[in-house]
Amino acid sequence: MLEKDLNHDPSDALKAAFRRHASGVAVITTKSESGDPVGFTATSMTSLGSNPAFVTFNVSQGSSSWPALSRATHLALHMLGSENLGLAKKMAEDQAKRFADSDWEFSEFGLPVFRDATAVLFAKVREFHPVAQNAVFVAEVLSGKLGKLDKGLLYFQRSYFNPADTAL
Amino acid sequence: MLEKDLNHDPSDALKAAFRRHASGVAVITTKSESGDPVGFTATSMTSLGSNPAFVTFNVSQGSSSWPALSRATHLALHMLGSENLGLAKKMAEDQAKRFADSDWEFSEFGLPVFRDATAVLFAKVREFHPVAQNAVFVAEVLSGKLGKLDKGLLYFQRSYFNPADTAL
Repeated sequence: MLEKDLNHDPSDALKAAFRRHASGVAVITTKSESGDPVGFTATSMTSLGSNPAFVTFNVSQGSSSWPALSRATHLALHMLGSENLGLAKKMAEDQAKRFADSDWEFSEFGLPVFRDATAVLFAKVREFHPVAQNAVFVAEVLSGKLGKLDKGLLYFQRSYFNPADTAL
Repeated sequence: MLEKDLNHDPSDALKAAFRRHASGVAVITTKSESGDPVGFTATSMTSLGSNPAFVTFNVSQGSSSWPALSRATHLALHMLGSENLGLAKKMAEDQAKRFADSDWEFSEFGLPVFRDATAVLFAKVREFHPVAQNAVFVAEVLSGKLGKLDKGLLYFQRSYFNPADTAL
């Protein structure tokens, strides 16, 4: 039963409800105009139809990646597995350390790619829609690569999880 | 290592990669102009900033809910838990059966609400962006309700799962 009202503050209502909603974890990268690798952990990546193949994700215009992202033409969208927990954490923390290791290389379209991701899609930015201080990105998938099969990486109740071993 | 190229068909690349990406499962409902309840299972719902509190989701313009959804002013966004597996399946199948049981009622803003969801948010549609034969919806959260705490419901590798019992 839906018993507890969350009517006082829409922001609190959203946070309380989304704590109960799991999301897949991705790392999205691009290259800045000066050629530097830029990227971040995203829990909002989702598909928008498969034919034509589009992807959406949401990002804050205040994020460190925003200047590069708002000018980007192409993106690398990494699907993460349980072995990428460290990568998920690294790409959500200190920007200076995100590309300090040798776990990535410039690849298709000059994009920085983390080679231990369980899959990567290469996509062309088609549009983005500013909403308050955030933005919704729409990108068209061009190609991709599969890595090692792994359990998916989730974000749920402010922690990282894998899916349970067996389906419901 | 990212070894298998998915270059032949962007649609196949997207499907192969997203099979490895888990998503939370939601049920989104609204009321048609004639007052009928309308709703569907969504795996694309995600937050877009918490202050102001926005939510996005993607939907096919060919879906049975599209006529009502494209005219909707308000939405009920249900977070699902493991006890809502039957609801998730029902709201993804035969449209005629989706509101045939007595597990819902008209609630805030005249919206149909499934009372066993683990949380529900009430939101106002702010905009939607058509992309090919799909659309990206942006809705502003107004209020919400919390139900029973439950494990989150996931969709992953074309099956439903819960998160594992312990965090990574």
